[in-house]
Amino acid sequence: MSTICFPEHPSPVADAEALRKAFQGWGTDEKAVISILGRRNATQRKLIRQAYEDLYQEDLVKRLESELSGDFERAVYRWILDPEDRDAVLLHVAIKKTPVPDYRVIIEISCIHSPEEFLATKRAYQARYKRSLEEDLAQHTSGDIRKFLVGLVGIYRYRGEEITTKLANSEADILHKAITEKAFSHDEVVRIISTRSKAQILATLNHYKDDHGASITKHLRGDPCSDYLSALRTAIRCFTDHEKYYEKVIRQALNRPSTDEESLTRVVVTRAEKDLKEIKQLYQKRNNISLDHAVAKETSGDYNAFLLTLLGKQD
Amino acid sequence: MSTICFPEHPSPVADAEALRKAFQGWGTDEKAVISILGRRNATQRKLIRQAYEDLYQEDLVKRLESELSGDFERAVYRWILDPEDRDAVLLHVAIKKTPVPDYRVIIEISCIHSPEEFLATKRAYQARYKRSLEEDLAQHTSGDIRKFLVGLVGIYRYRGEEITTKLANSEADILHKAITEKAFSHDEVVRIISTRSKAQILATLNHYKDDHGASITKHLRGDPCSDYLSALRTAIRCFTDHEKYYEKVIRQALNRPSTDEESLTRVVVTRAEKDLKEIKQLYQKRNNISLDHAVAKETSGDYNAFLLTLLGKQD
Repeated sequence: MSTICFPEHPSPVADAEALRKAFQGWGTDEKAVISILGRRNATQRKLIRQAYEDLYQEDLVKRLESELSGDFERAVYRWILDPEDRDAVLLHVAIKKTPVPDYRVIIEISCIHSPEEFLATKRAYQARYKRSLEEDLAQHTSGDIRKFLVGLVGIYRYRGEEITTKLANSEADILHKAITEKAFSHDEVVRIISTRSKAQILATLNHYKDDHGASITKHLRGDPCSDYLSALRTAIRCFTDHEKYYEKVIRQALNRPSTDEESLTRVVVTRAEKDLKEIKQLYQKRNNISLDHAVAKETSGDYNAFLLTLLGKQD
Repeated sequence: MSTICFPEHPSPVADAEALRKAFQGWGTDEKAVISILGRRNATQRKLIRQAYEDLYQEDLVKRLESELSGDFERAVYRWILDPEDRDAVLLHVAIKKTPVPDYRVIIEISCIHSPEEFLATKRAYQARYKRSLEEDLAQHTSGDIRKFLVGLVGIYRYRGEEITTKLANSEADILHKAITEKAFSHDEVVRIISTRSKAQILATLNHYKDDHGASITKHLRGDPCSDYLSALRTAIRCFTDHEKYYEKVIRQALNRPSTDEESLTRVVVTRAEKDLKEIKQLYQKRNNISLDHAVAKETSGDYNAFLLTLLGKQD
């Protein structure tokens, strides 16, 4: 469930005018920006962008970029874009990251989002960067990790719930054989995880657990520095329980000596209108502290105020 | 350009009634079936199917299957389906073909059709078979050919016309290096052909020709039994000149000791409303005989009459 609080029928024109006012005079009124944009859903934000453009012949996104800065600016920028456009930006940033791409972002978006949402993201990526997501990803990766990620990204996955038990059984055996032989990147492993429907993968993983006494992720241990192995585990966790996965991303982001704002922002912004409430509950249960408290402790300033608003804090 | 002749506003109800009449009594009036269905475009055929269903609570496609037989039935069946549904059937038949899949069909549809058409085909495939095209293809192939075909099929290719000259240059060199080393199935070769936009691939192939004195297909000679190598050449020919490619498919289908009706039907049915006129011109030029004459000579009966109708023969 969503964490953000938003009025039912706010006026996009009044919101655009209030934002314009917040930009004028000495400095920016960040509080006003937060209390408007942090309390509007995706459709409402889109209408504000349109109203702002109509009223002032100016792109609100560009104006916000020039008015704000740092982590706060990045968070607002990701928040104000349409979801598919935001995902395209996240993917592009992840692919271009040096020295190596941020594989997690690519896996999250390709495994957790529905095939239709992911397709919308691919279209947005092409519209924005004039290239396909697949070609950029293939160009910036190599070896096993390329084989796996290009497979994950380049599939229009079947989203039906039908499963074939016999297939789940035989493919669980294929996975087990490969893992026993430490052939983690065997073509068959890549094929199963990258092409089967989510329902079929879950059935296969359940068979695996029933037949071999432990979950597959327990058996996927080898070279701890292997990007491929870690990517495979991430994909499996995204399929099996993505809320638990996101809780861990947030936990790690907050527990680092210096907070990983990029990951924290990404999870809060992308899940606020979907299942951030459930992620918050998991966080509280796992860490004995509420996510709001942890975020309040580890961040500061406008960035802090904005995240807390998205997490559902009332005035 | 299209070869079929069709009236501008035929009545779907009158057509459905005429078909119903053709099915009644002793035997089927195949001539009537041909003269109606062979002279209607995709939209008109769809309306006939709907009118027939409304009038007689019967599926016209199923009825045709029970009324007709042999090559004629298969051709009518492929013709009457919506284009994306027909392509889904063609792909499914190709993948399930024993002892090995018919790779050409998979390459044609993924490389020649626009990204949007191909996406519609993937949706139709899932609706029909309750699995994704990608997973079926991956399951029925292995090794280099799997790597290549799953790459081709699993991409939502960018269709813009922008190209990057520098990239075309550097990727032409990558291709040439791999080919010189006979590393035809090198990951980089697969990456370039399976992920780049058509415009970018053509630019790269032109650079290749300029820098290395011959077209890449001339250099792609090795083990003549290699499915992979032949698939790679096919993909390149589909990108560079798909009409020329189709002319060759038809020529080979007609020149075999026993005609390859499957390939002949496929090209005629899938291209009749697109560019069969251009393919006919190429055929005439290359073989000194018109395609109509060649088809008339190598086929017979209702199948012959139906193909000639699709090729544009007037009564």
